[in-house]
Amino acid sequence: MSALPHPAPLSGASYSAVELAPAGDRVILLDQRRLPGEERYLELAEPNDVARAVSAMVVRGAPAIGIAAAYALALGARRTGITLEALEELGRELARARPTAVNLAWAVELMLGVARASPNDERADRLAHQARAIHRADVAGNRRLGALGAERVQDGATVLTHCNAGALATGGYGTALGVIRAARDAGKRLRVVADETRPWLQGARLTAWELMRDGIEVELVADAAAGSLFAGGSIDLVVIGADRIAANGDVANKIGSYSVACLARLHERPFYVAAPFSTVDLACASGAEIPIEERSPEEVTRLAGVDLAPAGARARNPAFDVTPARLVTAIFTERGVVEPVGAAGLAGLARELSEA
Amino acid sequence: MSALPHPAPLSGASYSAVELAPAGDRVILLDQRRLPGEERYLELAEPNDVARAVSAMVVRGAPAIGIAAAYALALGARRTGITLEALEELGRELARARPTAVNLAWAVELMLGVARASPNDERADRLAHQARAIHRADVAGNRRLGALGAERVQDGATVLTHCNAGALATGGYGTALGVIRAARDAGKRLRVVADETRPWLQGARLTAWELMRDGIEVELVADAAAGSLFAGGSIDLVVIGADRIAANGDVANKIGSYSVACLARLHERPFYVAAPFSTVDLACASGAEIPIEERSPEEVTRLAGVDLAPAGARARNPAFDVTPARLVTAIFTERGVVEPVGAAGLAGLARELSEA
Repeated sequence: MSALPHPAPLSGASYSAVELAPAGDRVILLDQRRLPGEERYLELAEPNDVARAVSAMVVRGAPAIGIAAAYALALGARRTGITLEALEELGRELARARPTAVNLAWAVELMLGVARASPNDERADRLAHQARAIHRADVAGNRRLGALGAERVQDGATVLTHCNAGALATGGYGTALGVIRAARDAGKRLRVVADETRPWLQGARLTAWELMRDGIEVELVADAAAGSLFAGGSIDLVVIGADRIAANGDVANKIGSYSVACLARLHERPFYVAAPFSTVDLACASGAEIPIEERSPEEVTRLAGVDLAPAGARARNPAFDVTPARLVTAIFTERGVVEPVGAAGLAGLARELSEA
Repeated sequence: MSALPHPAPLSGASYSAVELAPAGDRVILLDQRRLPGEERYLELAEPNDVARAVSAMVVRGAPAIGIAAAYALALGARRTGITLEALEELGRELARARPTAVNLAWAVELMLGVARASPNDERADRLAHQARAIHRADVAGNRRLGALGAERVQDGATVLTHCNAGALATGGYGTALGVIRAARDAGKRLRVVADETRPWLQGARLTAWELMRDGIEVELVADAAAGSLFAGGSIDLVVIGADRIAANGDVANKIGSYSVACLARLHERPFYVAAPFSTVDLACASGAEIPIEERSPEEVTRLAGVDLAPAGARARNPAFDVTPARLVTAIFTERGVVEPVGAAGLAGLARELSEA
């Protein structure tokens, strides 16, 4: 379908990256590959199709693909006679769809835990309930971490962001763009500079689309232009999302985030990361252990069916990079702000979580 | 015409950005907007068409547009009854075609000096002779600065370059790529990482094309990926070209060069600039005085007729940035190597030039 999913998205926004149909029988995904030209929703009844859609970047953004995986498991649990083993195999397939974002594995584990604890005849209902709870908690968490982050955005600020960590990357409010939304809602004037974010152009296609829809001033730049904006004093702070945060505070995020962090450090501007606590992977000691997805060279050498480089040209296409904790000023999570960024702060919030 | 210009290019290469036809009646430009898909040459008989071609980036690269302007003035001087004043007006039009590269103004001034000193009946011949001399000197200068720069390239090195400072940007050998060619010709093994260089993609379209033609190993990356390559220890040195070098050693070059310089500094890798001395503008005290061309936002928001951003999206598109002298390890010129980079070294080479 190509209209807004019905009923209204769980987040209350006018669009949504991912929803479970009211009857629980289909996962509804906004096809982000077609944005900004076309707002088209896909309805998937097969859980394996959701895994393929994650892999093909119909839906992307660490929290959003976690929610999509949860919904896919909820779909799978409805199948007549499906075994726990088959659900676990589906979970592994979903977790493999993209390697870097830990939210995928986190959501799968959480869902499988519920599946294991459920009587057979209640499993489908409980998994649908749990998946919707994950989605609802993500939106609530985004609002909370957005409000915490907004306290660091001064009135009149120009905020640089890289890639898309918005409603389209999450349950419906956004992490980095959640901070920007919360600052705007708190009455602060601000403008956003968005890196276009090659090769997938999430900044040009998605971040500009979201912010323009919300009436927030946004200006696009080629990724390579960020340096001259810093040098000219045009950037007051940076806020980005995250795909995985290691126990020591190293942050994996969209390729190019590390370059922005280097520029922010050299120009003495704060570099903030906004992410739900589900993005923190305490089992990963440091960024060196985070698997970095290498995508097809064609994403660099071709665009919209047009060859950008000579036939046979080689290219490298790492989808993520790692920003070391020492370059991150603070991490905004729904549990609180981690500052200074490091093992102690993250472990402290993790303890609160398990004690809560 | 779409074949190789005849006779063979002045540089001895198998293609050429700019040539004067043997009869002196047409300027032949390789239409770089069509590369790498199509190698098509335009033949222009009107000097104003050359100015328009420079503005439209049919030909680009500071030294190449200087040569194109010289040839355009040689064309103009052939017109029956043309006055010195009309030639000077043509010179102003050519110099305005692009504001940042100083080679344009430098070539125009040099040509007009010859025009002023020539008897009317010898002016056309002398200007054609002078323009070809500028072209020939550029190629010889590239070979000389390339050899000087190649001494800094260790065997087995991986060299990062940004934009295209090759045969296509010059009389036919290259500045940054001249260093790479000279290192290869000296028997050194090396590989090149080329930033794709949004928004015009000179890295993907031109640098990859040139190096693949020469059989030099080249790998493309999105501009934003350079940081992670530095972090991983994959880059040994950087070499780029220049559009204008101020008296204090500040370097204006393609947007994104400054970000690469920041990364090189943070990762303790040398950052070299290769340029003919005609790129040095001693009348410009520092980079702050260099005019930075701001091109159409559509170059960021559209590509090959495809909208990359939502309709109505705003974008900034500065075509160049300034790297301060303190971030530049050395400048390779045909007169010698400037190191440390600063006013004293540049003034020293300028004095040698005037005393020579």
